[in-house]
Order: sequence, then structure tokens, then C-alpha cells
Amino acid sequence: MTVKKDHYLVVSAGTIQGVFPQVPAEFAGLEMLDYTGHLVIPGLTDLHIHGPQYVFRGLSMDRELLDWLNFRTFPEEAKYRDPEYARRAYRLFAQDLRQGGTVNAVVFGTIHKEGTRILMEELEAAGLRAYVGKVNMDRNSPDDYREETEDSAADTRAWIQETAGAFSQVKPILTPRFLPTCSDRLMELLGQLQREFALPVQSHLSENQGEIAWVRELCPQADFYGDGYQRFGLFGGDVPTIMAHCVYSGEEELLRMKERGVYIAHCPQSNTNIASGIAPVRRFLDMGIRVGLGSDVAGGHSASIFRTMAEAVQVSKLRWRLVDQTLRPLTAAEAFYLGTEGGGSFFGRSGSFQKGYAADILVLDESRMPYMEELTVAERLERYLYLCGEKDILHKFVGGRMLF
Amino acid sequence: MTVKKDHYLVVSAGTIQGVFPQVPAEFAGLEMLDYTGHLVIPGLTDLHIHGPQYVFRGLSMDRELLDWLNFRTFPEEAKYRDPEYARRAYRLFAQDLRQGGTVNAVVFGTIHKEGTRILMEELEAAGLRAYVGKVNMDRNSPDDYREETEDSAADTRAWIQETAGAFSQVKPILTPRFLPTCSDRLMELLGQLQREFALPVQSHLSENQGEIAWVRELCPQADFYGDGYQRFGLFGGDVPTIMAHCVYSGEEELLRMKERGVYIAHCPQSNTNIASGIAPVRRFLDMGIRVGLGSDVAGGHSASIFRTMAEAVQVSKLRWRLVDQTLRPLTAAEAFYLGTEGGGSFFGRSGSFQKGYAADILVLDESRMPYMEELTVAERLERYLYLCGEKDILHKFVGGRMLF
Repeated sequence: MTVKKDHYLVVSAGTIQGVFPQVPAEFAGLEMLDYTGHLVIPGLTDLHIHGPQYVFRGLSMDRELLDWLNFRTFPEEAKYRDPEYARRAYRLFAQDLRQGGTVNAVVFGTIHKEGTRILMEELEAAGLRAYVGKVNMDRNSPDDYREETEDSAADTRAWIQETAGAFSQVKPILTPRFLPTCSDRLMELLGQLQREFALPVQSHLSENQGEIAWVRELCPQADFYGDGYQRFGLFGGDVPTIMAHCVYSGEEELLRMKERGVYIAHCPQSNTNIASGIAPVRRFLDMGIRVGLGSDVAGGHSASIFRTMAEAVQVSKLRWRLVDQTLRPLTAAEAFYLGTEGGGSFFGRSGSFQKGYAADILVLDESRMPYMEELTVAERLERYLYLCGEKDILHKFVGGRMLF
Repeated sequence: MTVKKDHYLVVSAGTIQGVFPQVPAEFAGLEMLDYTGHLVIPGLTDLHIHGPQYVFRGLSMDRELLDWLNFRTFPEEAKYRDPEYARRAYRLFAQDLRQGGTVNAVVFGTIHKEGTRILMEELEAAGLRAYVGKVNMDRNSPDDYREETEDSAADTRAWIQETAGAFSQVKPILTPRFLPTCSDRLMELLGQLQREFALPVQSHLSENQGEIAWVRELCPQADFYGDGYQRFGLFGGDVPTIMAHCVYSGEEELLRMKERGVYIAHCPQSNTNIASGIAPVRRFLDMGIRVGLGSDVAGGHSASIFRTMAEAVQVSKLRWRLVDQTLRPLTAAEAFYLGTEGGGSFFGRSGSFQKGYAADILVLDESRMPYMEELTVAERLERYLYLCGEKDILHKFVGGRMLF
């Protein structure tokens, strides 16, 4: 993390030109915004969030993953078959996200083609950059929230054709929910769609031990859980891929992810709430695997990536203390990296103030955080991660455009 | 946890008279406040918070307990020798606490007699009920933040004489910081003061393994850490006592606490932030030990006991998953109990709406938590614990007096 005090951040054409102690002559004609005394940081990236789960955050938290899915999540997501319901709920979601620090989001929708398009419209209207997925699931799901295999693929194709290129900042991403809810045949069809439309992919991986054992039964041909995705061409390599969680990924799976450039979306709050465990993020970083942060609403109850940063540090301490003292805890600066450039790189040049990056900028509001004496800039940032509420942001820019 | 919908909570003379479906005739003349549609709950108790640490919450969180004490905490606390500094900082603390859900607080001050009196004045002015302690420490502390043994006892005596009975809702509590910073001679003198003035006691216990090993060296005569307090008459029995943390208390220590009615202040956020571990709260409850919650600011970065409730649930899940699957996680209702009646009972009848309890009441504001469909009252409460900010409270009453 590089800290500069009393510098000029120069932006033109929606792009960062650099950070300078004085404004270079070539930029002297640009409009000047004065944020003296404020922390100014790159916009944040949420690599894993479920749009339809936003409205039931903080509910049924006394349940574990598979139980929580069946009791709360699937019945709620089934409601998004109604476009009216989807519109109201997704508007709440997108408008709240707009007010927070997230600039880039990688979002799960539901199985519904129309509902997912509405989600994309609302995110576009909110001014955010996003990949959004229509979820696929053709097995191990309730009767009223499951697709027929061929319909799932056909709907996905139609949805891609409708939405790819339809928005300026929002794009489709292939989204098999996870192997337990996707038959081999469906995965095959999704692999074909991937090759036809060259879409990125998101899914869940090795979140919970019960889930992993189940995948082993369902997909006996796969060498390990992640290999089950790769067999259908949906696991990195030429295919930009995000896998959420990886709490229990083994050595082989991690090596494969590193080799194939698969991103891990680390979701500490969700892994805590649904009692999954604590992912070994230090290990991921040491191995050189790509990692960003995910709020995983509504496994996580907060959509704030600032809070996710603090919690990434917190759970890494508990893991160090309780599980493995060879993996030292994350620092605040490392967590900050994960939530900015770490995840932002999935979107190309976002999450940093290096020249050529998108002008994704947050001007922070510390007025609710009185302190008695002067702090360093790094101290103020650390404190902000811990103390900020979801809306302690003064200004937010996405690609140079001021949202507020 | 008992939930009543659309009932009347009857209060007179600052005391709860009961919760009724209709207002009983004898109370028909009382003034009526209409909070239809709002959650109305008992006020919260924070059994462990450090007043002088409030202004540096969220700083130096990358350090472990003993390192954090020496690097950040002791130098900051030393500043409270200046009454002017103490006044400004304690006013921030007390006014913020006033705006939150805490009605009862058990508070550490610093070693300074005058500063600690100022802390008491500010809490009294804020309308809160509190036990406040002048800290004692005569060894293993920096030169500029350490007392001479006899001075420590003499100052404590003078401070007790000045403050006991000086306030309507704020009282002194004996506060040896912890055994490592208190010589045997000082502990002896504090024991004498306890017997002379019949004060309650607060301290720290078995928070961190390095600390426990250190206590074993420093106090070889004690059977275990808690026994080191008891040898000086400062560990329950006739002496109301709160011990913070107890993350690593052994069987013998726990049995002793149960036997002597010692309260445990469970501080999940602090135990996470300074990498202490996770206390086995389920075990405490199963054994019948008295337990409440502590924010432990600034080991904890949030003074919200609502948030502490949610985090008590969260860390209990991680402990269940990572350490001991025989101790099932806490439920939201259990965490709610700990933060209300569990800790409130240290103050007598507080933390419940049973007849005869103090009218400590919070009317909650859920307006920032939109939901698409109707929820049960219990669901709304669970959600509130997870989603509330520090100030989502509409009205707050302490002993029947409306603070806001």
C-alpha cells in the first residue's frame, strides 16, 4: 500500500493520469476538486454477492449452509419469478450498493431470465460496474425453484443474447450455482455457451465440508471439487473465473487455481455466519493465487467491503490462533489490497491509482470518528476500515463519473 | 426470550409493572406513549469497557495483547493525567455511549484519581448507570504510567471517599488492572479497601496464553490465575466480581467462578482483534456460570452491545467448527439474553421487563432495514442485531427517564 499526503490525483477521460506532489503543466487546464484533509482511495470490488439475498440479510443466521439454503434462500429466491417483486427488491439492493464503497460487483441473480435482466438494469442505473449471472440449477433444488436441463441452457442463451452489449457497464457472467445443483449435462451445455460467447464464469467452491463430501458422491469422476468445473471448461485458463470461498481447498485444487489463474473470492463474514470455517488467505497469497474479497450477502449480512476488509483481518487472527500458527494474520494494508486492486483486477485496470487505471475513486468521510490527536494517513485508513458505517463516504466516482 | 406482540409495557415510578395485552384498570391514569410497530426491548449492559480507550478504537489492531498494551494503550492512557484531556475525551465517550443501546456500563478508567472522577461525572451527566474503576498498577508498566504501591492504595482510598455516594447512578468499583501489573502488596491493600468499603471488583482473567504463563511465573503461590485474585479476597463470594475474557480458564477456575458467583464478561470482538482466541460461552452457560457481554473497547472497536451480541453468535460458530463440536453455537436469542438480563443482573434488577425491574427501555428504529414482506418479531430482532448501526435507536429510557 502506497500512501501519499497532500498530493494531486490527476484524472482525465475517466482514467487516472497519476498522483503528483504538484500538478504537471500538461494538466494545468483541468478542473480542480479540493478534498484537502480527506482520505482519497481507489473504489472497492465485491467479487461475490447475491442480489436477491440482499433483502433478507441477518435472518436465519442460526443455520448451516445446506440447511440455510433450503430453509431461507431457495424459497426467497423463488419469488424473483415475479418481475414486479424483482424490480422492487433489486432497486433497494442497487441503490444501497451505489451509496457504499463498491464500484465493481460480481453478482449472482436467480434462475429467472427476466429477473436477472432487471437486476442488470438496476445496477446500470445505479452507475456501478458489474458482472451479473443468471443462475443455473437443474437438480437438488426445490420443485418451484429448479430448471429443466435444456430449458436452463436455452434461457441462458437467450439471456446472454439479450444482455451482452446491452449496457455500458454491466455484463453477463456464466453462473452455475454450484456442482450439487447442476447435472453433468447442464454443465456440458454451459461449457458450450462459454466457448460460443467467451463469457467469464463464477461459482462456489469448497465452502463447507458437508458440501465437499456431497460433491465427491455426485461427481465421482472429478479428481477434486474444482476439477469438476474444469472438466466442462469452466475453471480458468482462457476463461476468467471466480470461485467463492475455497475454505477447504486442498493442495491440488489450490495449485490448479494458481496454474489457471482462477480468482478466489474470500468471504470472511459469510464463512463465519453459516459456520463454514476460515479460509487460509495467507496461504493463497503466499502461493501467488489471485484473491479478492466478497461480501457474499446474505451469507454475509453486510454489503460493505470496508467491513469485509476488517473481518478478513479478524478471522485470519482467529485462524492463526486456533488452527495454524504458521500462517500469520493479514494486516490492514493487505486486506485493503484485497478489496481494491486484488479483486479490482478482475475488471481490468481498477482498484489502484496507477496511471492508466479507471478513475474509480472514493473520498471518505471521517467526521463520525473523532480522535484526540493527529494520526498518520495509514492509521486513519486502518481506523476507517474498523469504524466506518455503510455510508461514511463523501464522494464516489466510477470511471471518472461522480455518482454522488 | 419472551416475545409479545401489540402489548402494553406498563411503567411507574421508574419501575416495570408488567407487560399486558390490555392496560389494567389500576394503571389507566398513566401517560401513554405509542410505539406501535416498533421493537421495544430492555436496555443493554456492557460489562467491560475501557473509557480512555474509546478515542483510539480501530488503531494498532495488527498487534497482540501484551504488545498492543505497551505500544498503544499505556502511552494513550498516560495522557489522562491531564484533566483537560480527560474531560474532552471522556465527554466524547460518554455522549456516544448515551446515543447507543447501553444503559449499564462497567468501566475501566486510568490510574489517575482526578481523571477517573471526571469519567464518572461525564457518565452521570450522560444519564447512564455505571460502575467506574480507578485502575491500579504498580509494576510491569511504563515509568510514566505506573503507581508507587502505597500511593496507589492511598489514591484509591481518597478516590473512593470522594466518589462513593457522590452520584445518583455512578459508583466506584475496585479495579486492579490484572495480576501482572499489581504486586502482592498492592493486592493486599486493595483487599483491605474492599472489606472496608464493601466495593465490587473488576479485572481481567485468562485472556491470552502468554499472559497466563506470565501470571504463573509472577504468582507461583496461586493454584491458577483466578486463585491469585481470591487469595486477596477479590474473587466473588461476598464480593460482586466481574472478570473479563476467561478465554482459557481451566476446569478448576471455572468451577471456582461458578461456586463464588463471579461474572464473566465475554468480549468476542476484542478476543478476535487482539488474537486471543474464542471463549467457550456455551460451556459457561451449561455450567451455570454468570455471563454477560463486554465491548472491551478498544480491544473491541465497537461500543455497540447489539453488535457484540451478533459477534458472540459468530465466534461461537467458528469455535464450534474449528475447536470443539461438542459445544453448539449460541443462538441469537441466547446472545440477546447475555446482553440484557445476563449482564444486567450485575446491576440488580435490570435487563428484563419482569415486574419490579428498572424501566430501562429501548425503542428501536428499523427504518434503514427495508424488508419485502412481513417478519415475525423474533426475526426482526435477529435482523436488527446484525444490521443495526450504532445509533438506530428511536428512544432510550434509563430507570424510566427518557434520555432521547
